[in-house]
Amino acid sequence: MAEPYTPSARTRVVREPQLAVYDRAQVYEILDAGFVCYLGFSVAGQPYVIPTSYGRAGDVLYIHGSAASRMLRRLSEGLPVCVSVALVDGLVLARSVFNHSMNYRSVMILGTARIVVNEEEKLRALEVLSEQIIPGRWAEARRPNARELSATFVLSVPIQEFSAKVRTGPPIDDEEDGSFPVWAGVVPLKTIAGEPIPDPYLDEGEAVPNYAKSYSRKGWP
Amino acid sequence: MAEPYTPSARTRVVREPQLAVYDRAQVYEILDAGFVCYLGFSVAGQPYVIPTSYGRAGDVLYIHGSAASRMLRRLSEGLPVCVSVALVDGLVLARSVFNHSMNYRSVMILGTARIVVNEEEKLRALEVLSEQIIPGRWAEARRPNARELSATFVLSVPIQEFSAKVRTGPPIDDEEDGSFPVWAGVVPLKTIAGEPIPDPYLDEGEAVPNYAKSYSRKGWP
Repeated sequence: MAEPYTPSARTRVVREPQLAVYDRAQVYEILDAGFVCYLGFSVAGQPYVIPTSYGRAGDVLYIHGSAASRMLRRLSEGLPVCVSVALVDGLVLARSVFNHSMNYRSVMILGTARIVVNEEEKLRALEVLSEQIIPGRWAEARRPNARELSATFVLSVPIQEFSAKVRTGPPIDDEEDGSFPVWAGVVPLKTIAGEPIPDPYLDEGEAVPNYAKSYSRKGWP
Repeated sequence: MAEPYTPSARTRVVREPQLAVYDRAQVYEILDAGFVCYLGFSVAGQPYVIPTSYGRAGDVLYIHGSAASRMLRRLSEGLPVCVSVALVDGLVLARSVFNHSMNYRSVMILGTARIVVNEEEKLRALEVLSEQIIPGRWAEARRPNARELSATFVLSVPIQEFSAKVRTGPPIDDEEDGSFPVWAGVVPLKTIAGEPIPDPYLDEGEAVPNYAKSYSRKGWP
């Protein structure tokens, strides 16, 4: 995981290069903080971008295939994809509109997605996905049976060619705007979990598990 | 805005069609609740997905071009794009792993992006973007000058061909799982704004404006 990473021509960050992150460990931290990615692929020249859940296992991203898989499954060779994950941490209010920005952590992975066909890998991938979204749930919920497993599509994308950007901190204004009479700073944004809502058909006596009661994620600000 | 909308073959929702939303007003509500979209486009067969801010004005989505524009600006004809916006409202914990889901509101727009070249439209688009992200800020911040305006890329995407999906409510388990001994329900997720952090170089006496102090968005649960 600590191996050095050299960006390709297509993943070298050109715009705002000072925000670029090429450190694999830091990229994995960002990926582990999220659980929804945007999967991009093209069919007949038309790009599609589908939001879907993911889980990381080592250098592989497993993606819940769903809609995309209907298009992908005909392509045994796999398909070039782009997977994008962005976590927005705040609105950055500069004195000038031009220097407004956001604080964020983002990762973009280019690669070829393949459909996971091996049953064992598929089951492991589903566990990875489940644990990424809500750690602890896999151990308690009813596991997939053979019928469900074959109805589930999982894509695997190697985390090989990627770029990442992280912005933190206050606005950066042009010097001549320093005295412009307006408040400047950051409005932090964060995601929080609310009180769990029990299923109306829930059996009495099923206590809310801790992973649902105090749901939180590493990397949540 | 109340015109009837008929999905195209590429935007008709096939998976979970009961979640499909084809009502333009409801789609606009979803778009107005967010401010970060994922812009997908292809260059030389490779799809790219770039997270960026957007603003809606009527039937047009304005997108902050940034990185994408470097690739787009050579294409005077415009480029096929897909714009995806998804708001995650909760984790849906079913009794079976298979029936786990998320509550969400999502919109996908297919279309051709063009670069806004008209200075007047560009300025208006920037106002739309600014107001979508933080209403009230445009009136107070230092507006873009000619140099900044020409350094800014804005893309315009018509909201013509789109699909949307909304999931709400409790998990839907298979009947035979009803008695499986595990808690089931929804963990609601929401985004909130924290205490504004003033720029370290802020002039004393610049009070935090209301739009930053109590930042909230319509559509935030």
